[in-house]
Amino acid sequence: MRRIKLHIEYDGTGFAGFQRQGQGERTVQEVLEAALRRLPGARPKVVAAGRTDAGVHALDLPLHYDTEDRIPIERVPLALNALLPPDVRALMAEPVPLSFHARKSARWRAYRYLVRVSESPSALWRHRALWLRAPLDLAPIRAALGMLVGAHDFKAFATKETRPTKKRLFRAEVWREGSLVVFEFVGDGFLRGQVRTMVGTLIEVGLKKRAPEDVARLLESGTRAEAGPTAPPQGLYFLAAGYRPYPSR
Amino acid sequence: MRRIKLHIEYDGTGFAGFQRQGQGERTVQEVLEAALRRLPGARPKVVAAGRTDAGVHALDLPLHYDTEDRIPIERVPLALNALLPPDVRALMAEPVPLSFHARKSARWRAYRYLVRVSESPSALWRHRALWLRAPLDLAPIRAALGMLVGAHDFKAFATKETRPTKKRLFRAEVWREGSLVVFEFVGDGFLRGQVRTMVGTLIEVGLKKRAPEDVARLLESGTRAEAGPTAPPQGLYFLAAGYRPYPSR
Repeated sequence: MRRIKLHIEYDGTGFAGFQRQGQGERTVQEVLEAALRRLPGARPKVVAAGRTDAGVHALDLPLHYDTEDRIPIERVPLALNALLPPDVRALMAEPVPLSFHARKSARWRAYRYLVRVSESPSALWRHRALWLRAPLDLAPIRAALGMLVGAHDFKAFATKETRPTKKRLFRAEVWREGSLVVFEFVGDGFLRGQVRTMVGTLIEVGLKKRAPEDVARLLESGTRAEAGPTAPPQGLYFLAAGYRPYPSR
Repeated sequence: MRRIKLHIEYDGTGFAGFQRQGQGERTVQEVLEAALRRLPGARPKVVAAGRTDAGVHALDLPLHYDTEDRIPIERVPLALNALLPPDVRALMAEPVPLSFHARKSARWRAYRYLVRVSESPSALWRHRALWLRAPLDLAPIRAALGMLVGAHDFKAFATKETRPTKKRLFRAEVWREGSLVVFEFVGDGFLRGQVRTMVGTLIEVGLKKRAPEDVARLLESGTRAEAGPTAPPQGLYFLAAGYRPYPSR
């Protein structure tokens, strides 16, 4: 038996999220496990570094599974891609010790959120970014991002979260790329709905509907009702996860 | 009666091309004309600056239609977007004289073609770019592009073209953007299949399977069978069309 760490990319548009639901809904986990069931020797069970909601994408999500197949490691992505639908792609595989756990061993996770600012909505970006007509002022957003970085109780930004709500955010940045505004967050972990609620709140800051200092108040109060709306799923991307300490700069 | 010039964007993935076919196939023209049929006063007939094949996208395609509606011009995109499916978006409308013709009056058209070079195929780019594993050398491609620019008989690059095959290419460039290789072509007009066959041939040049000088020979011989394969549709984008002479640099 060997354990394989597999990096995958997916287009979340056609999925009811990552996690198996067993209610006839198409999920990334089910599609992956169905592919493993067709790979002789593989155990049809995957554990991923993170979960994503319906419509959320992944650029590079690590997961692990166990197998007794003898496929050379560099050919594993090719073998799996032949069994996977085109909206999920295996990018890279590497052997890991049986003690490796894609979720529990992860030291950091990174997410990106794309907002497209344009006069008209876009056909090509409709499943890839949130559309805003009004311009965003990045200066107050950056002030608010500075308050989010560090160890905090992020309860005010969580949706139906039952686990501990203290997390550490290592990095939080925003920049422009053409008509896109790109948010990037790196943390030791994220609560359910956290990135989308942070973005929903930060957009209100960028539209001058809310002062940057509000974010500090939200971290203190922990009251979800005082935060902004949950930004829609299509702008969110699971970017990467790492298994060594996040490098401080 | 007034004539309106409308700029549209579309995701070509779900369309059997631009042109109405009347065989139960979903086309951009049919979807647009169905929207106009629901706009009181509008004539349900559009004329576009260009046509695209199944799977080809448009970032900004101008078209015209005639109407007796009284919608303020700046609200026309909003009114049409309420009637259009989300994979076609009206971007901008302006009034034009009845003598304006979106196809016949166009002085130049521009196309882009995206190639994504990466070790693995991509889920998120599968309908947006051609995937290549082998790296492309842009220097020989640029040499070949230089031979394509100018007035030539592009017969060797046309697919089932019955109209005159002499065209003028004003500009032909290639550059890298991260993992993408971007081709851009501006000409007075393009033959059926021309951009995709030029790209298919230029990729062979970039892979060193063919010398740049081959392109000059193809322009002379006019033999389609000697050109490269037609690059697949998902990498092609109708970029823009203009109604004044293309500015020389």
